Amino acid sequence: VSKERDRIYDTEEVARVGQMIRDFVPHNRALGIEVVRIRMTEVWTRLPWAPHLVGDPVRGILHGGVISTLTDATCGLAIMARLGRPSSIATLDLRIDYLKPAPPHAEVYAWASCFRVTKSVCFVRGGAVTVLPPEGSPPGLDDAIAAVAGTFARKSG
Amino acid sequence: VSKERDRIYDTEEVARVGQMIRDFVPHNRALGIEVVRIRMTEVWTRLPWAPHLVGDPVRGILHGGVISTLTDATCGLAIMARLGRPSSIATLDLRIDYLKPAPPHAEVYAWASCFRVTKSVCFVRGGAVTVLPPEGSPPGLDDAIAAVAGTFARKSG
Amino acid sequence: VSKERDRIYDTEEVARVGQMIRDFVPHNRALGIEVVRIRMTEVWTRLPWAPHLVGDPVRGILHGGVISTLTDATCGLAIMARLGRPSSIATLDLRIDYLKPAPPHAEVYAWASCFRVTKSVCFVRGGAVTVLPPEGSPPGLDDAIAAVAGTFARKSG
Amino acid sequence: VSKERDRIYDTEEVARVGQMIRDFVPHNRALGIEVVRIRMTEVWTRLPWAPHLVGDPVRGILHGGVISTLTDATCGLAIMARLGRPSSIATLDLRIDYLKPAPPHAEVYAWASCFRVTKSVCFVRGGAVTVLPPEGSPPGLDDAIAAVAGTFARKSG
Repeated sequence: VSKERDRIYDTEEVARVGQMIRDFVPHNRALGIEVVRIRMTEVWTRLPWAPHLVGDPVRGILHGGVISTLTDATCGLAIMARLGRPSSIATLDLRIDYLKPAPPHAEVYAWASCFRVTKSVCFVRGGAVTVLPPEGSPPGLDDAIAAVAGTFARKSG
Repeated sequence: VSKERDRIYDTEEVARVGQMIRDFVPHNRALGIEVVRIRMTEVWTRLPWAPHLVGDPVRGILHGGVISTLTDATCGLAIMARLGRPSSIATLDLRIDYLKPAPPHAEVYAWASCFRVTKSVCFVRGGAVTVLPPEGSPPGLDDAIAAVAGTFARKSG
Repeated sequence: VSKERDRIYDTEEVARVGQMIRDFVPHNRALGIEVVRIRMTEVWTRLPWAPHLVGDPVRGILHGGVISTLTDATCGLAIMARLGRPSSIATLDLRIDYLKPAPPHAEVYAWASCFRVTKSVCFVRGGAVTVLPPEGSPPGLDDAIAAVAGTFARKSG
Repeated sequence: VSKERDRIYDTEEVARVGQMIRDFVPHNRALGIEVVRIRMTEVWTRLPWAPHLVGDPVRGILHGGVISTLTDATCGLAIMARLGRPSSIATLDLRIDYLKPAPPHAEVYAWASCFRVTKSVCFVRGGAVTVLPPEGSPPGLDDAIAAVAGTFARKSG
């Protein structure tokens, strides 16, 4: 990890990363995942509500699996932000707690932080909310709809 | 749980449940989840490979989040099979281990078993493979691409 | 949850709770778990190093299972602090990530927060460190030796 | 993994491993963990009931953390059985589901299987029961008191 303690990406860089993950990963594009903020210690993404993402059609609530996919992708971005470069990683395991259902027809924001890196493994935490907190405020689980804990493998080479 | 120790659904019933979960849940339909086998103690589903489900475009490998969504849905079906009726349930938490990547352009099969039910919580285990094992053979993790452990809330009323 | 947003227990109350969990639970006593701080939103405990708690005798490092037991007990306390009263709870599931080994012969501090309560389930997060942070500073995972995520059942009656 | 598909340890070898893990690991000795069966694909251990292991003194039920420590140790043994030699491993993360409380004053048996090994990570599943099943019968979760899923790091060198 570089000397720079917490590099913050500017608007243009964030847009470029968002474009890249949709261009490169078809399923990110199919879901419509956007990148909102990137700093070395924390990444934020956004998932607009869409009819084909719904799990509960009576109330128009997003499918839990969509939230899981969003947070998984956000964890991957958090690792790259921490490492400071695109990296070959693979999710080893992910635990998601569904704290409460997303509100009907609501977009979702996810955050993730990679808080520990070893030679072969990265540890990540994150969550999902329905209102983007002001820049700089620490992400919390008080109003979160999901919480995530994951372990990722760093592939060498 | 009924006296019937392991009710096995016939082909027509399986097809009807498969139709129902795609008709009712838009995101199941968007992914293309099919139901393959249902018995009280074990449910099998299938996810055909499709371009918009890809996570690794270089090798044409399914997105991990898609596998997670498939297994989550399969766990829900396993609970209903165990309870013997459609039930209002919600995923509390789910852990998925990604054991190896799915092969390129490969369909995926998922299984789940609800092995314990309390008044308010159901415990489920499952996994995903790329070859459907013969009917009656116990599902194992030896060639699995993912393993899943989840806890679900039974909603009363 | 009461109107009081974050009740802080005074020194005497903390000592009394610590005495109670050792008097009442033989295995807490066998490990030597102490209670350090209690507030509605966060609980801290301490485990003094002792020879019979060691997992790696070459380096004198505590057994991971001991850290797990400590954090489990701390999660239980965090739920009671949040609910504002002794409550009948049971661990449904617990995930622990071992971020790095405890240092040789080091005592360990654990914290936990119960950040969401439903009618039948409580969600808790926590961790373990080797240096107690100053009062009021938010617990983080940067120097943590373990991180914990758990779901607990509230037993009615 | 050797050509030998499922090496089974004889009584003397099992006793020697049991002696070793108690001699070498103080906390295993403090708990009283015994080794019951070892084969390449599955390991069984036993924890005799003892007053200082109790979590619920009213009913004399073992502390959940003790079950967790037992299963963690059993997972480590399962990895060594699979690799065919003592190995330097470290628990990365462990999820335990508490399915039902152990009966009062009951001993506990734990099993674990390491079902996948990569260059740097081992995946393990296991559980705990109160009655040792007949040799050769596959371990199941139907009457289990706990289920475990863990990821372990293989340390090189």
